[in-house]
Amino acid sequence: MSQTNYPEVNADRLWQRHMDMAAIGGTEGGGVHRLALTPEDIEAHVLLAQWAEARGFSVALDPMGNMFIRREGSDPSLAPISSGSHTDTQPYGGRFDGITGVLTAFEALETIDEAGIETRYPLEVAIWNNEEGARFTPACMGSAAYVGFKPLDDLLSRTDPEQVSMRDCVADLAKALPQADKRELGAPIAFFIESHIEQGVRLEESGNIIGAVTGMQGYRRFEIEVIGEDAHSGTTPRSRRKDAFVAATDMTHALREVLWDDDDEMRYTIGRFEVLPGGVSVVPGQVNFYIDLRYHDKAALDRLAIEIPKICEAHSGPCEVRIVDAPTVDPMTFPEDIVTGIEAAAERHGFGHERMYSYAGHDARHIARISPAGMLFIPCWKGISHNEAERAEPEHVAAAAQVISDILIDRAKS
Amino acid sequence: MSQTNYPEVNADRLWQRHMDMAAIGGTEGGGVHRLALTPEDIEAHVLLAQWAEARGFSVALDPMGNMFIRREGSDPSLAPISSGSHTDTQPYGGRFDGITGVLTAFEALETIDEAGIETRYPLEVAIWNNEEGARFTPACMGSAAYVGFKPLDDLLSRTDPEQVSMRDCVADLAKALPQADKRELGAPIAFFIESHIEQGVRLEESGNIIGAVTGMQGYRRFEIEVIGEDAHSGTTPRSRRKDAFVAATDMTHALREVLWDDDDEMRYTIGRFEVLPGGVSVVPGQVNFYIDLRYHDKAALDRLAIEIPKICEAHSGPCEVRIVDAPTVDPMTFPEDIVTGIEAAAERHGFGHERMYSYAGHDARHIARISPAGMLFIPCWKGISHNEAERAEPEHVAAAAQVISDILIDRAKS
Repeated sequence: MSQTNYPEVNADRLWQRHMDMAAIGGTEGGGVHRLALTPEDIEAHVLLAQWAEARGFSVALDPMGNMFIRREGSDPSLAPISSGSHTDTQPYGGRFDGITGVLTAFEALETIDEAGIETRYPLEVAIWNNEEGARFTPACMGSAAYVGFKPLDDLLSRTDPEQVSMRDCVADLAKALPQADKRELGAPIAFFIESHIEQGVRLEESGNIIGAVTGMQGYRRFEIEVIGEDAHSGTTPRSRRKDAFVAATDMTHALREVLWDDDDEMRYTIGRFEVLPGGVSVVPGQVNFYIDLRYHDKAALDRLAIEIPKICEAHSGPCEVRIVDAPTVDPMTFPEDIVTGIEAAAERHGFGHERMYSYAGHDARHIARISPAGMLFIPCWKGISHNEAERAEPEHVAAAAQVISDILIDRAKS
Repeated sequence: MSQTNYPEVNADRLWQRHMDMAAIGGTEGGGVHRLALTPEDIEAHVLLAQWAEARGFSVALDPMGNMFIRREGSDPSLAPISSGSHTDTQPYGGRFDGITGVLTAFEALETIDEAGIETRYPLEVAIWNNEEGARFTPACMGSAAYVGFKPLDDLLSRTDPEQVSMRDCVADLAKALPQADKRELGAPIAFFIESHIEQGVRLEESGNIIGAVTGMQGYRRFEIEVIGEDAHSGTTPRSRRKDAFVAATDMTHALREVLWDDDDEMRYTIGRFEVLPGGVSVVPGQVNFYIDLRYHDKAALDRLAIEIPKICEAHSGPCEVRIVDAPTVDPMTFPEDIVTGIEAAAERHGFGHERMYSYAGHDARHIARISPAGMLFIPCWKGISHNEAERAEPEHVAAAAQVISDILIDRAKS
């Protein structure tokens, strides 16, 4: 077997591309506010397409707003070897979550292209639409639609809080990229790997810079409406109130009793909680809130998913409670040969590495349903993410691109 | 003493004016959404000015956006005998809260004018700006500024959630009413009476239709910021979170222990509670919320106002807590001769009446600081207010106008 040549990625170029991207939706607090398919997020897609075209790569869009940057291989009958992530952010999020996975994949393609390496398989960067689920629910919408896990029509009909539909946003993206080819949903992918900041502190604490991800925890979410009755805060005694705030916080407190485990492994979060109508002197007649529950054990998640609505019902007092939506994703594991492939590439370049589990959900979870798939993590300062203060180091980002580049070469030449 | 002639108010005209006003900011749910000095609220002011001018009454504005409709008296040296309330509503509020006090006052002036009654004192309808405190805090802003209870400059600098200032809104109102005379803040008022829906169920239960209000409960409010740290809901264990939602709901639960009295007389409400940044999968780094506490006993309010910040601090966990603002209003009583005057007028027309206490705050509270002042209530269907379903009966609204008209005549002739 001949020795493979693994060209070195361009760390400065990769960092500059991160800074250029961070300016699109950049916030005063040093973060990025670039919700899915807002004008800012579309601008990020257009800039990526410009970089791709400058290099002679082609661009394609699918009906769900996923974008693909392609370097052709020598065998046109083969499905692509792919890497990527997402461009959208949480509200007032950071400069690395998602975009690092896109830019390291793009850097890998540029590095391979500059080195003049011919591959049998085409190489692709995938930009999955609406990974965060912040503007439109559910999260990982683009990859879920691509693999057929959720129906396209339903997802395109989802609306943001201003009642703008995903359908209209995808049309806006297509309008901004008239040169893009069309890609079918579910078109085969031969291999997929995603790099991402860890969003935790384990790499920082161990001093390693590559995490070979073995699997991902699952979640159960509940979108809940609590319906009471608006009333005057001065005149209405407690006994006559149907106070949706009181009922909803009774529910969130009761859920703690069950969900706050001694091991601190269960992740129970109320991140969106809207009190309506929102007047200081109005007993609130409605609360809409989300329960986000994540864990590694499917059986426990299944059991709790049955208990949660019962607990809410039991603490609704004089109010009504409705489960509006209950998205669910099971825990999963990545193939062993992909995990060892990441370890081998890290080892080759002297990057300290370890195996780790993912406590966040990522698009690779869905792509794994139709293709061999894997993930790697790099350190994230203090584990802070979904926050303007999110930070990653230039040399860690470059290490991720190097591992991705090596793996794409191995997979695409074979 | 000669027998006074008390002309009868025009119940149909008064009801029609209610319906005309309800169309401005009218909601699909049959209520009114007309927040202070929005285009809708300014339109309501302009319509009142048109009605006034059609009758030959003059219109004036003060620097706080309060509006005055005036019928001159025979002695120009005298301060006005006044009645009124407010045009603004709560978010998705009702068709009677506030506007009934304005329209019954206007009906009284029209009735007196049609009857050709000359008065020594000028008669006025007062429309106090931003009574609800829903768009801008604090509530009763216009009357508070008029009597010098709060400084004009501070109040004009208040902004709504979209960062629009009250100063700009007052300028918009003045622009919409170029013909208006200028009124000085604090210009003397000889007498003030306000009619209002009860926003409670006592009149409905007793079958009386006029409540002679003896006094008003006070309040202590707290605007509180809870500062934690945004974090990823999947990766961040509980032990590393600074979850502002958890801290804030610990506070609101702990406050219940102290504020939920056995007599159900204390009014403790959380009506505005904002969770930021609001992503489903983001541990929230900030909560802004308001405590609204109302009671008839000043000593108890004073004691609790000292305890509340301590309770919040004690339950802040890893978060910071800041008291941003703490508006306070003491309980008060109306002069006995005004209460008996209301009873006498009700008696004269055969309207069932009773004395009652007000559990809501109203502008009359502030005006009482510079003028003899009083209030009367009419029934309110099921006590429902600050709600689209708010309802009052045409004959009860007319009864209020009749009592107001009688009292204005008595006070303005004397």
